[in-house]
Amino acid sequence: MINFLNDYSEGCHPRILEALSRTNLDATVGYGLDEHCQAAADLVREQIQCPQAQVHFMVGGTPANVTAISAFLRPHEAPVAAVTGHINTHETGAVEATGHKILTCAAPEGKLTPALVEEVISGYTDEHVVRPRLVYVSQSTELGTVYSKAELTALSRFCRSHGLYLYLDGARLACGLAASDLTLSDLPQLCDAFYIGGTKSGALLGEALVIVNPALQPDFRHYIKRHCGMLAKGRLLGIQFEELLRDDLYLELGRHANALAQKLQAGLTALGIPMLVQSPTNQIFPVVPNGWLQPLEALCRYEVWGKADEHHTVVRFVCSWASREEDVERFLELLKGMNG
Amino acid sequence: MINFLNDYSEGCHPRILEALSRTNLDATVGYGLDEHCQAAADLVREQIQCPQAQVHFMVGGTPANVTAISAFLRPHEAPVAAVTGHINTHETGAVEATGHKILTCAAPEGKLTPALVEEVISGYTDEHVVRPRLVYVSQSTELGTVYSKAELTALSRFCRSHGLYLYLDGARLACGLAASDLTLSDLPQLCDAFYIGGTKSGALLGEALVIVNPALQPDFRHYIKRHCGMLAKGRLLGIQFEELLRDDLYLELGRHANALAQKLQAGLTALGIPMLVQSPTNQIFPVVPNGWLQPLEALCRYEVWGKADEHHTVVRFVCSWASREEDVERFLELLKGMNG
Amino acid sequence: MINFLNDYSEGCHPRILEALSRTNLDATVGYGLDEHCQAAADLVREQIQCPQAQVHFMVGGTPANVTAISAFLRPHEAPVAAVTGHINTHETGAVEATGHKILTCAAPEGKLTPALVEEVISGYTDEHVVRPRLVYVSQSTELGTVYSKAELTALSRFCRSHGLYLYLDGARLACGLAASDLTLSDLPQLCDAFYIGGTKSGALLGEALVIVNPALQPDFRHYIKRHCGMLAKGRLLGIQFEELLRDDLYLELGRHANALAQKLQAGLTALGIPMLVQSPTNQIFPVVPNGWLQPLEALCRYEVWGKADEHHTVVRFVCSWASREEDVERFLELLKGMNG
Amino acid sequence: MINFLNDYSEGCHPRILEALSRTNLDATVGYGLDEHCQAAADLVREQIQCPQAQVHFMVGGTPANVTAISAFLRPHEAPVAAVTGHINTHETGAVEATGHKILTCAAPEGKLTPALVEEVISGYTDEHVVRPRLVYVSQSTELGTVYSKAELTALSRFCRSHGLYLYLDGARLACGLAASDLTLSDLPQLCDAFYIGGTKSGALLGEALVIVNPALQPDFRHYIKRHCGMLAKGRLLGIQFEELLRDDLYLELGRHANALAQKLQAGLTALGIPMLVQSPTNQIFPVVPNGWLQPLEALCRYEVWGKADEHHTVVRFVCSWASREEDVERFLELLKGMNG
Repeated sequence: MINFLNDYSEGCHPRILEALSRTNLDATVGYGLDEHCQAAADLVREQIQCPQAQVHFMVGGTPANVTAISAFLRPHEAPVAAVTGHINTHETGAVEATGHKILTCAAPEGKLTPALVEEVISGYTDEHVVRPRLVYVSQSTELGTVYSKAELTALSRFCRSHGLYLYLDGARLACGLAASDLTLSDLPQLCDAFYIGGTKSGALLGEALVIVNPALQPDFRHYIKRHCGMLAKGRLLGIQFEELLRDDLYLELGRHANALAQKLQAGLTALGIPMLVQSPTNQIFPVVPNGWLQPLEALCRYEVWGKADEHHTVVRFVCSWASREEDVERFLELLKGMNG
Repeated sequence: MINFLNDYSEGCHPRILEALSRTNLDATVGYGLDEHCQAAADLVREQIQCPQAQVHFMVGGTPANVTAISAFLRPHEAPVAAVTGHINTHETGAVEATGHKILTCAAPEGKLTPALVEEVISGYTDEHVVRPRLVYVSQSTELGTVYSKAELTALSRFCRSHGLYLYLDGARLACGLAASDLTLSDLPQLCDAFYIGGTKSGALLGEALVIVNPALQPDFRHYIKRHCGMLAKGRLLGIQFEELLRDDLYLELGRHANALAQKLQAGLTALGIPMLVQSPTNQIFPVVPNGWLQPLEALCRYEVWGKADEHHTVVRFVCSWASREEDVERFLELLKGMNG
Repeated sequence: MINFLNDYSEGCHPRILEALSRTNLDATVGYGLDEHCQAAADLVREQIQCPQAQVHFMVGGTPANVTAISAFLRPHEAPVAAVTGHINTHETGAVEATGHKILTCAAPEGKLTPALVEEVISGYTDEHVVRPRLVYVSQSTELGTVYSKAELTALSRFCRSHGLYLYLDGARLACGLAASDLTLSDLPQLCDAFYIGGTKSGALLGEALVIVNPALQPDFRHYIKRHCGMLAKGRLLGIQFEELLRDDLYLELGRHANALAQKLQAGLTALGIPMLVQSPTNQIFPVVPNGWLQPLEALCRYEVWGKADEHHTVVRFVCSWASREEDVERFLELLKGMNG
Repeated sequence: MINFLNDYSEGCHPRILEALSRTNLDATVGYGLDEHCQAAADLVREQIQCPQAQVHFMVGGTPANVTAISAFLRPHEAPVAAVTGHINTHETGAVEATGHKILTCAAPEGKLTPALVEEVISGYTDEHVVRPRLVYVSQSTELGTVYSKAELTALSRFCRSHGLYLYLDGARLACGLAASDLTLSDLPQLCDAFYIGGTKSGALLGEALVIVNPALQPDFRHYIKRHCGMLAKGRLLGIQFEELLRDDLYLELGRHANALAQKLQAGLTALGIPMLVQSPTNQIFPVVPNGWLQPLEALCRYEVWGKADEHHTVVRFVCSWASREEDVERFLELLKGMNG
């Protein structure tokens, strides 16, 4: 069965498995203080060109978001996110579980702008309401779209002039960077913190959280432990990021996933299927007639995203580091047959 | 350098690495709903002889403890633990972070008894104090000691007659079972919930949380996600437990670690070194003259546990699935030399 | 200065002050277990015609809402509220501070309907999202509007058939009942819990929280204490509710406030001033030209509610038990002069 | 019945009731921003001789403690308290409910010393444990004892040199100051924050929280609201403290309560009854034969504090601003009769 379900269906990139095997019986200290985590953190600092950044390896995206946001904010402070933002939709209230209200706004294509954030925060000025303090964005977004360097720069400037931290969720950063004019080294210039996602880019698990703003760095390891996110065998995360960050593998995997998804999107568009948004990354959102849903299930694994109108449904197709070009081609052929 | 530092210094048992390689490119559904997690959960249910138990694979011991305790208790209810209990000492307040006070008592050798628990709970009867509702024990304990079947049965009866849940932290369950007359199938008879620890018994990470009491089962996956503990590639945990639970590997690794630690303990005792407690498992706690600490550092990695008196220090030596008999023997030889 | 700022500007109804004086030197037990609290709770149960209801006297509306909602829900469960609902707007994230996400929907005139709630809850079905479990409504609403008996009954039926608790915030219940066909004795038929507001109806402070659903009653006093809401001199609340609930004083005060606000609304309408909503209660929301704001400040105290359009502003005028008819009349006369 | 049950059995000092009556129909702004709260805060600042202190009027002692501690600490930081400290015993886990573990130590007579605190904090140095950050003391303590100026100064110095805040719970500060060489103006020199208790010193409810350390002042009103502690009619608290702080009334009430309790303690001692501790304040702790408990109940209201040994029980007798000398004398006479 062709798999467009998500970008975390398989294990990990083979190079990671090799590295785990190679190092398996070495004894190291625990809790992420080992030499692999240190080497991987150094690689991160080098590639983002920010020697003073703190790097912490987290077990997943939700723990990265929740640990960071709750560590950065005082209890009455709030993050601002798009309604579609992952922290607002698919984390089972994990941010609120740490006591923080999330302020949201409808955001076209899942992207925040200074104007949108300004409108959200304008009403929050006294002690009867929470205080907006952090802006949460994703690159790529939950709708596959990306911020350009100009867009993220504008948002960053707005945040700095309004006393807001800018936090970037990089669950799909490999794809997000590969499809935009932003580079790894732009991020510490623009964000107070961000993470480089591993789980959806070829790792078994793990994200590299980068804290750029020195005011947000103290005691962060306490927060990781308190939020149940510190692995005894932290090396498992360091070893993986050592591999991902060597020889451009990370971005390479993003480019691969994007290329296949774009080929798929082009093919579907050629078949007359509209998209919910024009996504330049590895997630695409075709709007298909309801009658297609069942036949599609015979062809591939995919996710129903939502209702478009009475007769149409938005679906999500995702390509990953593990997707194969021949599968995309075969799927498009099968679809043509079905359509014809 | 001989390593007695802990039981999580190396990667994982080779069979686990083989299984990860074998399955690496299979596409499965995410979030622990895949066939490996299901098979591993079935293995757990089979070996504990409790078909109706829920099994959840957690990323570590702290997440298992915290997610379980906070899911099982209403906000004003409290766990009772030995002062030395892991939730009270080395989890950076993670249980309290979910809003629950921990009630503690001094417990000889780290073990709770009905009498000790009764004394703790006796003062908690009105609305000005929290309500004791769960008893937390570890097998083996943080001091390497174990509950016998009779002891755990007595505690279980006390809990049931006093409206208390009994929760068992099995971070070192392989060693705990290998050194006691308790078996896996005794646990669901006696406990409302417990976990079978993987991280300290040969897994890269992961613990199998077993919820026996049906009243505690509903919506547990919500709690895992809300507490940031749900892996997108949940299969990583399932695959490991499939291996650990096949062919008696799990208990085998416990027996191996215990045997080497016991050999070490016997050797040290023969050299006239007293122990803080008589531990039958893989952690031992020699009380050494302060002057030994530095020379010891040249021989092996170990942990300073605490001060015994002005002139003596308690240290901890740990053996694991990865420890080698020749290292224990060599260490004892070196020590004899040093001592002589 | 004529005061339309709010309904909590003065101290308390004189009868309350007399009762406090009369009982001042009586010694009673503390923490709300005294005879006044018991008598007041009996009066509540009698007037709502629900002998098995629990009644707890709370220090304010936010503590009532927060203590109730966080006691009623398990950690992953969520209340559903109108965007304008008090818990979502003016409680500084106090519900989220207890770990619960609030799900909201835009609600015309601040009122929820079965259709609105159904749309909110429809997407919350798996463990990646919170579980909707309680519907929060206010009577009167934050916009002065009221639920009719038919409307609240429809909502109640919907809640029961969908496993949702119905909770009614009665901060302004005196006014809400006085302006609708609902009576105190209807509420326990329709709601799982609600509160009878004192602070905004002539008390110094205090609200009578009524828990109807027996499943929500256990240990509620623990929650009050844990949420810092238990007064040592709890009698202060009981004595006040004894007075409010005798001789129909409570509803009388609501009728008085409504009547004056309605006279004001009619007068303003006659002057050609539109209203944001047609409120039948003690809060009205005129939409005035921006140029009026400054002159109005010379005539009365009021609150700016928000921007209507570029040239108009919504203001809020509130009448209370302490408002005087002559002030309303004088204000309207002054306004006519200003307008003329 | 003679009342030694507690110091919050009656309403309030008559002067407070007069002030409430006098001001009852004045309209003021809400939420503690009125002129009475401002005047009372000015009185506090004047009497403590600390013009830059922030003063917030809280509804009770638990809300004062919990709001302050949780506002002052970052999530992984912990207060240190005596085992007998109120936050550790009789607040239903309200501090833990905000996510903070409390670190405790056994403290003779309920009083902390630098040596005791040093021993507690010595083990808390890495990210696997919480970070001690605030020392909580009470004046008078839960056992009626008091800190001398020298003792509190030593503790204050220790705290400052170890990066710990010093917080003083003044639920019974009137009695605590009246029985020690400490004065109101010493407190801001020594503490980062403290509260002047009203509830147990003649107010209906309310405590004046004083925040001296400027680093702890920002946004505190947000915390009050978020913790459900902001009264709409905040004037109720200001008016009461205006009275208590005028003409030395506050300390006068403390002296009165102490004098009667000391007379009682002397009388009991003369009858051969030992005390649990020598308390110089308004709470005393006689150790009586178990056989006395029932006869005592016929003579007065009191509280059983705990078991002394198999044959003796510790009871607590409390005098207050409302206690009368003739009652103490009569009680001692009755007791002599019983004893004789």
